Amino acid sequence: MGEAHYLEHEVHGWAARDSSGVLSPFKFSRRATGPRDVTFQILYCGICHSDLHQIRNEWQTSKYPMVPGHELVGIVTEVGPEVRQHKVGDHVGVGCMVGSCQNCDSCEKGAEQYCEHVTWTYNDIDHDGKPTYGGFSALMVCDERFVLQIPKSLPLDAAALLLCAGITVYSPLRYFGINEAGKSLGVVGLGGLGHMAVKFGKAFGMNVTVISTSPSKEEEARLILNADNFLVSKNDQQMKKAVKTLDYIIDTVSAKHELEPLLSLLKVNGKLVLVGGPEEPLQLNPFAILFGRKTVAGSTIGGIKETQDMLDFCGVHNLISTIETIPFEYVNKAMDRLAKSDVKYRFVIDVANTL
Amino acid sequence: MGEAHYLEHEVHGWAARDSSGVLSPFKFSRRATGPRDVTFQILYCGICHSDLHQIRNEWQTSKYPMVPGHELVGIVTEVGPEVRQHKVGDHVGVGCMVGSCQNCDSCEKGAEQYCEHVTWTYNDIDHDGKPTYGGFSALMVCDERFVLQIPKSLPLDAAALLLCAGITVYSPLRYFGINEAGKSLGVVGLGGLGHMAVKFGKAFGMNVTVISTSPSKEEEARLILNADNFLVSKNDQQMKKAVKTLDYIIDTVSAKHELEPLLSLLKVNGKLVLVGGPEEPLQLNPFAILFGRKTVAGSTIGGIKETQDMLDFCGVHNLISTIETIPFEYVNKAMDRLAKSDVKYRFVIDVANTL
Repeated sequence: MGEAHYLEHEVHGWAARDSSGVLSPFKFSRRATGPRDVTFQILYCGICHSDLHQIRNEWQTSKYPMVPGHELVGIVTEVGPEVRQHKVGDHVGVGCMVGSCQNCDSCEKGAEQYCEHVTWTYNDIDHDGKPTYGGFSALMVCDERFVLQIPKSLPLDAAALLLCAGITVYSPLRYFGINEAGKSLGVVGLGGLGHMAVKFGKAFGMNVTVISTSPSKEEEARLILNADNFLVSKNDQQMKKAVKTLDYIIDTVSAKHELEPLLSLLKVNGKLVLVGGPEEPLQLNPFAILFGRKTVAGSTIGGIKETQDMLDFCGVHNLISTIETIPFEYVNKAMDRLAKSDVKYRFVIDVANTL
Repeated sequence: MGEAHYLEHEVHGWAARDSSGVLSPFKFSRRATGPRDVTFQILYCGICHSDLHQIRNEWQTSKYPMVPGHELVGIVTEVGPEVRQHKVGDHVGVGCMVGSCQNCDSCEKGAEQYCEHVTWTYNDIDHDGKPTYGGFSALMVCDERFVLQIPKSLPLDAAALLLCAGITVYSPLRYFGINEAGKSLGVVGLGGLGHMAVKFGKAFGMNVTVISTSPSKEEEARLILNADNFLVSKNDQQMKKAVKTLDYIIDTVSAKHELEPLLSLLKVNGKLVLVGGPEEPLQLNPFAILFGRKTVAGSTIGGIKETQDMLDFCGVHNLISTIETIPFEYVNKAMDRLAKSDVKYRFVIDVANTL
């Protein structure tokens, strides 16, 4: 063992063939396991809202056939001879990236997601010139530097979305110092990202306020997720009462929305970090940040080292996502429900049992 | 000496009487020098663009008669018996604030400008219930905690505007860590604030790029202010070539303008700080900050301790502003020119000689 075999892997998966976004079974090949490659059987794959954007070509960059999925987890079946960090039988995962230049300032700082030559897990071109295919498939081959160890204490299905939704909120919380026990954190939007932000905030010992347009989410936020407070963003009275009460806000909303009421909730020196990506520009009233020396920052996913840090942190704190597991034959229905945000909080495909 | 006398001070100044903003001679009184008060003869007072806004009631908060001016410098003539930090003969100044609660989190952190009970130097109500009057006048009485020492090595006329324009750019440069030698700083707008930002950036050992709509400012920026680079913001080719070259940007522009081209100039993790206050909201494209983990922050003036730090820094580095000194009878003309940004870079009134 330990030696790479030189045959390509024939892989079954599901792909979108055009901008209808309809997914159907698809057979393709992955490269033979190279000297620094890890090959693993995919057991579960999460469905992220960006998968929906991409299969429907909503970002106008889609190439077909497209095998989506960037929250893939499974068990290592083979490693190349130079692989040092992973071994057969390990629980592993791959997130949004499968490569980067390893040379630039961002790569050197462990922020590969900002490398100009990052290779995305699907809908991209790999270093061998071939298209990349994602986790809606039976097997993955990936450079060991982009393979993450999933603590064995975590259930693999509920750990999958840590690789995108989890790191997308964990990274800015750590990078911008939003992890101080006793400080107050507002979480805007209670979806895949938001519910993980609440869990991390509580694990950091913070006082967490969920801010949502839906009063119906209050019970869930308080009782299931242990949020300390709940604000209905459309309730002016509630919002007014909460002015200048928050140290930090993480804003996970992808739809166009008003920043100013959120900024008014921040104390002096407060920071709001956007991790959702509304496609239309937001309105920024300069006075809303001048007075109070406030910050609006953006962040997207996270680097490999900090993703591993997060997974280890989740292992210690037993932090996982709340999911709905589905078979492959339900995936098109799931996409339609996702478009209506009708999921708590993430669909995860039971890949191994339903392909 | 050292004892406060108990007579109010009769003071000559110039005031606006209504929203025409026309200034004319005005007599008023200031309180007798109290135990912790410093009284000083005003020698010079700078004219800030916000004075223009206020005399013309453009912020809808003006009370008349209004004696503007929040960049006032002079020589101490009397101190109260409990004053410890200032003595007769000292060169001193007062900026935008003459009081604050001294109790809140902001005051405790030396950020009195963000105190909810800050008392502004004019157009406000002092703790004795009387209106505050600014520096377009012969004499000032002020709580010693809000009186700054001006290093005797600095000419008083050219030091005046350090108290507002100077600290407004110095404070965020320090607070946001934008003072690292060898890093690159973009300065947007070359007016009162911008030209000081260039001077501070160079004094910190930074590589400074001026970004302006006016190609005509290039010579001045490079030859007089020693800027390293100059970009015409309307020149797409120049802007495109400079994409991802700057670590930081300080944006001093008060007119509505596009943020996105500026954000594109920032490297990964770059920060843009707004210190100008456009009245209309700016457009913020979330993707312009998500990709590259960029920050847009705001800041206004600075705290008392950091204002003193700045003045000391300016004393050591012999940093002063470029000014045009004017007599009082020119002040209405100066306001008209200021409205057209026709000044390099600040009008300073020769108070003592022309009142």
